[in-house]
Amino acid sequence: MIKHALSVTRDGDFAQWYQTVISEADMAEDSGVRGCMVIRPWGYGIWERIQRLLDDRIKATGHENCYFPLFIPLSYFEKEAEHVDGFAKEMAVVTHHRLIQKDGRLVPDPEAKLEEPLVVRPTSETVIGAAMSRWVQSWRDLPVLINQWANVVRWEMRTRMFLRTAEFLWQEGHTAHATVEEAQEETRKMLEVYRDFAETCLAMPVVAGEKPENERFPGAVSTFSIEAMMQDGKALQAGTSHFLGTTFSSAQDIKFQNSEGQFELAQTTSWGVSTRMIGGLIMVHGDDDGLRVPPMVAPWQIVIVPMLRDQPEDAATIDYCKSLQAELAKLTALGEPVRALLDLKAVKAQTKRWGWVKKGAPIVIEVGGRDVAGGNVSVIQRNKLYREDGKLDSRIMPRGDFVAEAAAILESIQQGLYLDARERLDSNIRRDVTDFDGLAAMFADSVKFPGWAEVSWAKPTGAELDAVVERLKALKLTFRNVPGTAAPAEGTCLFTGKPAVERILVARAY
Amino acid sequence: MIKHALSVTRDGDFAQWYQTVISEADMAEDSGVRGCMVIRPWGYGIWERIQRLLDDRIKATGHENCYFPLFIPLSYFEKEAEHVDGFAKEMAVVTHHRLIQKDGRLVPDPEAKLEEPLVVRPTSETVIGAAMSRWVQSWRDLPVLINQWANVVRWEMRTRMFLRTAEFLWQEGHTAHATVEEAQEETRKMLEVYRDFAETCLAMPVVAGEKPENERFPGAVSTFSIEAMMQDGKALQAGTSHFLGTTFSSAQDIKFQNSEGQFELAQTTSWGVSTRMIGGLIMVHGDDDGLRVPPMVAPWQIVIVPMLRDQPEDAATIDYCKSLQAELAKLTALGEPVRALLDLKAVKAQTKRWGWVKKGAPIVIEVGGRDVAGGNVSVIQRNKLYREDGKLDSRIMPRGDFVAEAAAILESIQQGLYLDARERLDSNIRRDVTDFDGLAAMFADSVKFPGWAEVSWAKPTGAELDAVVERLKALKLTFRNVPGTAAPAEGTCLFTGKPAVERILVARAY
Repeated sequence: MIKHALSVTRDGDFAQWYQTVISEADMAEDSGVRGCMVIRPWGYGIWERIQRLLDDRIKATGHENCYFPLFIPLSYFEKEAEHVDGFAKEMAVVTHHRLIQKDGRLVPDPEAKLEEPLVVRPTSETVIGAAMSRWVQSWRDLPVLINQWANVVRWEMRTRMFLRTAEFLWQEGHTAHATVEEAQEETRKMLEVYRDFAETCLAMPVVAGEKPENERFPGAVSTFSIEAMMQDGKALQAGTSHFLGTTFSSAQDIKFQNSEGQFELAQTTSWGVSTRMIGGLIMVHGDDDGLRVPPMVAPWQIVIVPMLRDQPEDAATIDYCKSLQAELAKLTALGEPVRALLDLKAVKAQTKRWGWVKKGAPIVIEVGGRDVAGGNVSVIQRNKLYREDGKLDSRIMPRGDFVAEAAAILESIQQGLYLDARERLDSNIRRDVTDFDGLAAMFADSVKFPGWAEVSWAKPTGAELDAVVERLKALKLTFRNVPGTAAPAEGTCLFTGKPAVERILVARAY
Repeated sequence: MIKHALSVTRDGDFAQWYQTVISEADMAEDSGVRGCMVIRPWGYGIWERIQRLLDDRIKATGHENCYFPLFIPLSYFEKEAEHVDGFAKEMAVVTHHRLIQKDGRLVPDPEAKLEEPLVVRPTSETVIGAAMSRWVQSWRDLPVLINQWANVVRWEMRTRMFLRTAEFLWQEGHTAHATVEEAQEETRKMLEVYRDFAETCLAMPVVAGEKPENERFPGAVSTFSIEAMMQDGKALQAGTSHFLGTTFSSAQDIKFQNSEGQFELAQTTSWGVSTRMIGGLIMVHGDDDGLRVPPMVAPWQIVIVPMLRDQPEDAATIDYCKSLQAELAKLTALGEPVRALLDLKAVKAQTKRWGWVKKGAPIVIEVGGRDVAGGNVSVIQRNKLYREDGKLDSRIMPRGDFVAEAAAILESIQQGLYLDARERLDSNIRRDVTDFDGLAAMFADSVKFPGWAEVSWAKPTGAELDAVVERLKALKLTFRNVPGTAAPAEGTCLFTGKPAVERILVARAY
């Protein structure tokens, strides 16, 4: 039997396993500040890769990056009631701008109270809308296509690293257009950018589709999402794209003169993904030995570990490793130069090996004196860690062969992780559930991995929808989205018995 | 006489000229939120270039990026009195985590008052120190070499775009070491990284040296800076590097067991540069036609403007421009692929030309029907905008010649901007001032461009130093730093008459 690197397995306790991966892979830790985490180099390195690859795509679709204030005056929020209702309960509020000493403690200076409190941005529609109203006068100024990489704060009561933290990092795109059609096209275009990014770069297959009314962003006319399936069968909303209509342009007065000289409100959109994606990455690709990072977003794709013995021949081993690293750095894999690290830390080789396995570096190369003498390397592929007999699969290869194959191996790891996750997603969406009892049975407590159900529904609204949502809530279920690729609805609505109009995904969710 | 693109000249009103460049080059604008600016695409694009180039250097010197919380509990600050004194007067304080409606207005919910107020980070020594105390147990855990790209807030009463804003963007490096020597070496190494970066990438010559006692970072044992000379002769502190000794390791308990098994406090450092550098860039390289961006940090190095006439031949002009752009994008200049933009916005070519001149794109290429027919391009170099007769210097060149020379032209622009600024800095430091009256005369109100004085001083401390600082303040002067490259001190101290021990820079400053 295999003795895995982690003390907890996915099967044993998925939630505990998730926390263990984060801590054993040195990705993040509690900061001591309520609801906020410290993102450590390996976790932040993955975020930097996500930023670079997604930013390229955001720019390639014509958007430019800007930076807007962290603070938003309360009056900006007051202009849009629905938006306020969505966020007021979880906002960090700045009320003072100075501290003083009082009885040996630091306290906010009562003399330095702000006339108008400031909110730490939970999202930037209001403050960016105010800027757009300055920028947009004529149809010639449209579209405005901008994006911001920033931190935002939502005072969540129950937090979980990467998935739900008081402060998190994200990008938020904001655009303004002359017509509804153009704005809707933008909303769908960015959803498609997210889908492609998640599947290509994160090797994380997703279902892209429209959210039902009750799951819309506060103030949106329509909200679209990409949903990924975690290994415990739950759904993770990994990105959203909103068509906002004139909600924010009327609140912030984003008005333009059209080519006939008449004034119109602009149609706006917003869309974002966050550090939450890293939580998804862990729960899609992790295994009982830790994380497995897809090569495209791995800070280091190949890690070279020299096996040193405090002997004179160590120098030759290190030289051999250095020249190997230089050779690998000249290769191109997955469209970019290969990222190879030589790990020279003063730590035992065995500890390093398992450290990199837990971090999920795609390839670990070990080089000992015998490898140097034979012109070989010992290769560990993170996606094929064990042989059939349960022993670690460390393959000795001629160095030249490995260098020649390294790019192809990285590409096969990227592809393999995607195909495994794709297979899991495709085979765990049930489409044969037609009544509520069947749904309840599918998600009974005794079922360990229920997956998702795609069901027919009549798309009820208002109070009728609320009632359905309450029934789902009792089963700890939520609507995810109406997949863009779903087959047309047949028969009757699972919830209301009325003629069905579309197919919608139902699942437990993070 | 040349009619320049801006309505204000440097000579006429330098402060107004600075604001005009920022606005005419679309770099930034007031946000409506007190003390905070909106950084627009051209300004943010320069910041992205700064980030990419400096980040490469920070990583190449062994540092890894992390992310720490935006919020710092008051108790973290209470542990280090000197540090608190330096920042308490300008801190944004979060006191509530929810808003409610009251009399139709949004107000902080009195029921949602935080037990311990949180400060929005003005700098992160305290919260990063707390993390380091978790990470460091043994000498084997040292050094810890980390960096963070983040926003910080200092509630400045008088703000000025890029130079002094309530919120600004920066990187802050934080390291912990086993010995004083190692930490001091790190402090100097990062100062040198900043010097090299400023001079190589920003074409901004600086003087690197140690700050006097009164200019130290709150809590630092020693502070070093790079100082740049603006075109009005004032100094701009463009980056700092601090040796913090055990100030923060004792406050945050960063303790390690040395190789003899004894416990010691770690020696820490911190160092940072911010969006302030962009203010320096403007005041070093701008001219009466707007900004001039050094090619290494220009978001676009070559901008192609097609001269369209709403005629059928426009299609051929656009094709010609597209293939030119593709050809240029294959070139390498200054160590990276050339960044060439084809500007297809629905704006008149004349407006575009002057827009890019004001933004300071290094090269603007105009292509009209005649250029297409003749296989030519019209080249405007931002650093040589006018001919001797005062007319715009637009050179017609065979397209192939331009492509062959483009990389060399970009390199010569980068070099030329540096040499001009270097000449200005070198020729405007006076080293012959030996008494206070001479200093006062040099900085008399009637002198338009006094530059800096490098004078001998006895390095007084405490009250004696305070008295000197007060005398300087009366002349609106400050100490900048003791240049690392200054000649040994001779004679007596200009301020105290005592034997001089070193040479220090005196200047007006931003």
